[in-house]
Amino acid sequence: MTTTGTPLVAIVMGSTSDEEAMSGCGQLLERLGIPFEQRVMSAHRTPDKVADFMRTAKDRGLEVIVAGAGGAAALPGVCAAYTPLPVLGVPLTSSPLGGVDALHSIVQMPPGVPVACMSVGSWGARNAAVFAAEILALKYPVIADALERYREEQRNR
Amino acid sequence: MTTTGTPLVAIVMGSTSDEEAMSGCGQLLERLGIPFEQRVMSAHRTPDKVADFMRTAKDRGLEVIVAGAGGAAALPGVCAAYTPLPVLGVPLTSSPLGGVDALHSIVQMPPGVPVACMSVGSWGARNAAVFAAEILALKYPVIADALERYREEQRNR
Amino acid sequence: MTTTGTPLVAIVMGSTSDEEAMSGCGQLLERLGIPFEQRVMSAHRTPDKVADFMRTAKDRGLEVIVAGAGGAAALPGVCAAYTPLPVLGVPLTSSPLGGVDALHSIVQMPPGVPVACMSVGSWGARNAAVFAAEILALKYPVIADALERYREEQRNR
Amino acid sequence: MTTTGTPLVAIVMGSTSDEEAMSGCGQLLERLGIPFEQRVMSAHRTPDKVADFMRTAKDRGLEVIVAGAGGAAALPGVCAAYTPLPVLGVPLTSSPLGGVDALHSIVQMPPGVPVACMSVGSWGARNAAVFAAEILALKYPVIADALERYREEQRNR
Amino acid sequence: MTTTGTPLVAIVMGSTSDEEAMSGCGQLLERLGIPFEQRVMSAHRTPDKVADFMRTAKDRGLEVIVAGAGGAAALPGVCAAYTPLPVLGVPLTSSPLGGVDALHSIVQMPPGVPVACMSVGSWGARNAAVFAAEILALKYPVIADALERYREEQRNR
Amino acid sequence: MTTTGTPLVAIVMGSTSDEEAMSGCGQLLERLGIPFEQRVMSAHRTPDKVADFMRTAKDRGLEVIVAGAGGAAALPGVCAAYTPLPVLGVPLTSSPLGGVDALHSIVQMPPGVPVACMSVGSWGARNAAVFAAEILALKYPVIADALERYREEQRNR
Amino acid sequence: MTTTGTPLVAIVMGSTSDEEAMSGCGQLLERLGIPFEQRVMSAHRTPDKVADFMRTAKDRGLEVIVAGAGGAAALPGVCAAYTPLPVLGVPLTSSPLGGVDALHSIVQMPPGVPVACMSVGSWGARNAAVFAAEILALKYPVIADALERYREEQRNR
Amino acid sequence: MTTTGTPLVAIVMGSTSDEEAMSGCGQLLERLGIPFEQRVMSAHRTPDKVADFMRTAKDRGLEVIVAGAGGAAALPGVCAAYTPLPVLGVPLTSSPLGGVDALHSIVQMPPGVPVACMSVGSWGARNAAVFAAEILALKYPVIADALERYREEQRNR
Repeated sequence: MTTTGTPLVAIVMGSTSDEEAMSGCGQLLERLGIPFEQRVMSAHRTPDKVADFMRTAKDRGLEVIVAGAGGAAALPGVCAAYTPLPVLGVPLTSSPLGGVDALHSIVQMPPGVPVACMSVGSWGARNAAVFAAEILALKYPVIADALERYREEQRNR
Repeated sequence: MTTTGTPLVAIVMGSTSDEEAMSGCGQLLERLGIPFEQRVMSAHRTPDKVADFMRTAKDRGLEVIVAGAGGAAALPGVCAAYTPLPVLGVPLTSSPLGGVDALHSIVQMPPGVPVACMSVGSWGARNAAVFAAEILALKYPVIADALERYREEQRNR
Repeated sequence: MTTTGTPLVAIVMGSTSDEEAMSGCGQLLERLGIPFEQRVMSAHRTPDKVADFMRTAKDRGLEVIVAGAGGAAALPGVCAAYTPLPVLGVPLTSSPLGGVDALHSIVQMPPGVPVACMSVGSWGARNAAVFAAEILALKYPVIADALERYREEQRNR
Repeated sequence: MTTTGTPLVAIVMGSTSDEEAMSGCGQLLERLGIPFEQRVMSAHRTPDKVADFMRTAKDRGLEVIVAGAGGAAALPGVCAAYTPLPVLGVPLTSSPLGGVDALHSIVQMPPGVPVACMSVGSWGARNAAVFAAEILALKYPVIADALERYREEQRNR
Repeated sequence: MTTTGTPLVAIVMGSTSDEEAMSGCGQLLERLGIPFEQRVMSAHRTPDKVADFMRTAKDRGLEVIVAGAGGAAALPGVCAAYTPLPVLGVPLTSSPLGGVDALHSIVQMPPGVPVACMSVGSWGARNAAVFAAEILALKYPVIADALERYREEQRNR
Repeated sequence: MTTTGTPLVAIVMGSTSDEEAMSGCGQLLERLGIPFEQRVMSAHRTPDKVADFMRTAKDRGLEVIVAGAGGAAALPGVCAAYTPLPVLGVPLTSSPLGGVDALHSIVQMPPGVPVACMSVGSWGARNAAVFAAEILALKYPVIADALERYREEQRNR
Repeated sequence: MTTTGTPLVAIVMGSTSDEEAMSGCGQLLERLGIPFEQRVMSAHRTPDKVADFMRTAKDRGLEVIVAGAGGAAALPGVCAAYTPLPVLGVPLTSSPLGGVDALHSIVQMPPGVPVACMSVGSWGARNAAVFAAEILALKYPVIADALERYREEQRNR
Repeated sequence: MTTTGTPLVAIVMGSTSDEEAMSGCGQLLERLGIPFEQRVMSAHRTPDKVADFMRTAKDRGLEVIVAGAGGAAALPGVCAAYTPLPVLGVPLTSSPLGGVDALHSIVQMPPGVPVACMSVGSWGARNAAVFAAEILALKYPVIADALERYREEQRNR
């Protein structure tokens, strides 16, 4: 399995203006050797694009969804509504309320439809990559190895 | 036009457990002589039901949507994603964070896809009915009259 | 109906220092072909000006009021007290508390006198224009068409 | 001067449902021998009543206004807009957000139109009476004496 | 694989007083046919117990950790420090600050050591079970089937 | 009475670093022709200085105290503990929490010992001057006149 | 040294109504064999009592001060202003804002005059006793032993 | 005893990026003549390093631990889990939520395992040094003298 193989992770975000805040996620997935794809799609502006992408995500081989959004951050929850795959949500700080709004919008999912909320902002973008690796490591030994090396580096830096 | 005619307003909410908190909305619409329908549908558990209802809402004669939800209250925003009709959102207090989460999830909509956020809880449910009447009064003189009587009563109570 | 015709929307704000934060509202109304007027008036410094403007707003042909304010943002609610027209409130970030104060002051209207609260800051200023268009589109087909084009552009950008 | 003389203080509140929360104010003014009157008037439902009362307040001999309100608590600020008398605001806990909304709506007045914000809830209602006494004590020796006795009792209880 | 087989999920919590708040997690895992074990261990009172349990968790066959805690809720993060398994954190409402403290303590993990934060309180306890199932479903078809039935029931209730 | 006469108002603040934030208060008092003095004294570092100043404030002819402080802003409350004069508190934004801490520390005074809390930051510093003028205007016609002119200018700017 | 010897710890609180919230502190000090005294004194109502008590606290043999207060909780900071002894502050939940106000008022002390803030409410009252024991254990072996036994019990319960 | 003797205080922090925020602590300890050591160790990345350091801290002669951390700031609480020495926690502002997250993570310790929380940010770093001195002054007269001189300077600056 290589980074350029069939994507196991999809990184989606509500706006092209979120790409910088989310950039750490793709960089870390690449470093961990996990193939991924990245898309801009909005739960509010392009809901059908989200629904279509998520409905077929599992069948196309994706195993984890990472969704970043700011403000009334509905994207992660809407992804979770359309796919049984684990969805990791990253609250971004793009609105004037500075991320507490996105945090509430992502973490407070109703019973039955979970989203795994990461830290606010760039910390969370990177942690979504690590958490995706932790999930995939249960199944893919090569990812388990890459994750172990990453954790070791964290300890030694 | 009577309350039992073709609905002009749809009241939707995420769960049957929200019916009590939202009850003031229907009661006040009835008092104002505005025909409405009420449905339970969840942006997270039954997203297709929301999408289908909202896509056809305008053509079925609906003119205003009222959506109440608690926690990561995506419902109002998702309604707004699928219909050009004005959507009024009511943040409910059903989660342990007591409504501030629903407030953030409803009010902080990204540019281009507005939701009109009402007060938190039962105040907001009633105000959604009044605000719907204010919108409809621009077009229906009978509603304008009913609204004026209601405002007069408010002044005199 | 042209942008330079009788105003359908009035944009009011508490201070000339709010003009930049609110500028997106007028720009978007213009783009949507909706005639509007813009005024500075304060619920606290010039309450009679607000009362006079709002009492006669409906008779002068206005159909929607947009009111932006920061801090103890009383302006939208006071507008709503004097006119049966729908009032859209935009919480601004001008105070040291950064907008959460204006959000509370605008959204938490008591039962009977609603204000439709938009997002905090410039997102909300633009959304007030879109929401005004959604209201007016119920009555004016040309605005419904302009709104549909705008929504289509949003989907494709 | 007796408690039953021309009122020096007016206690106003937005709703009869606020009377219990505000009751400590009148009780304490009575104990301090300060004549007062109490009225229900709403900045949102009966704005003209507020404007009329406040415009003539000074000429009728009133010297201090106490205004209690919950939620988007515009009443104290609107009182201050219409009278040069000192206005004391008491944020009440009547909304689901529990008083933080009223606190923001009352305390964050723009430069030029102050309101003196007291503590949230019944603590604030009582403190408004004491603060009114502190203001009036500058002018009325009998109130200064009553205030001094009250402060002495506070120290000894 | 049966619910009484080798545990795939460990539910840990800081205090026996958290058992009721967390009870929905075990109940839902049982319903989904996922074998689990449940333990009380505190990051603050019994840190060695946490460290020992987490260091060996993977080798004993566990694949997902669910950790619930209130107040300065360090438990989920400390679990994540000692195991490469995915850790799901549930912020509980046991402290006087009502859960916002636990939310901050769980969600704001530093880059490199993620915790997947669920909703506050009993919603989150149940969602941790569903999210664990989503992770395990990637590997165990029987869990994927159970999860699909659960999601179907959610849609129809 | 001139600005250079016996001070009627004392402006106190906890630190020399607060002087800029509080500068609008003295400037506005000067413009309103109200004589004042300004001192740096800390409830935490120099409590005896505060106690001595406040105990004798009334006898020295002072009639209103303005106290500005940030963080755990005890100064206004401690002033109020030592003098029966009205104390106006200005919450400053000097701490990393940005003023919400000072707001809580100043406004939430226990029953019996009020502080009149102004807006956060420079808005509040200026409003303390206006509110002091409102109090003094009850007794000094010349200040009432200056205040009326100031309010008129506010209306016309 | 016995619990009935010269007090090493003073527990002070602003009001008799705080005694129940603070009761866990004295109970735990007693269990740890640490002699203490308990007093009601208010930074706002009886500031001289606080100043006198704290100025002489060290010379009377006290070594640690525990101060509990709610709302604008100035008491711990004022204690710290008058004594070089370590002051532990316990934010109580007595005000309508539920403890976040007391937390801000106690923890955000300016540089130079620290207060050690404990958890909000009864958790904090008990922790103040344990923290006092941790301080005294540095000097008194018998307290170090009692503390070690307490910690051992915590681990085994 | 000199600053270069056996350390009495250990300053620990979660990341080298926290060194600047914490720098005031070491500087002030040096000025007070208190020998200390400073280490970077993370409760999340290097938990064994924390456990080992804290388990032996008392036997190596340390008497006070100062721990600074941002975000989900588990470090102070984890230190307290492994040592009976008093632990002072400093909430840092390194995360996008600006310190309120670290404040909650540090101050809300469960009963039985206290951490003494200082102010947020650089104020708290300096106050941790002063509070450490207050603790040590109970035992070391030379530190009591240095502390008294420091407090005197504070009064006179």
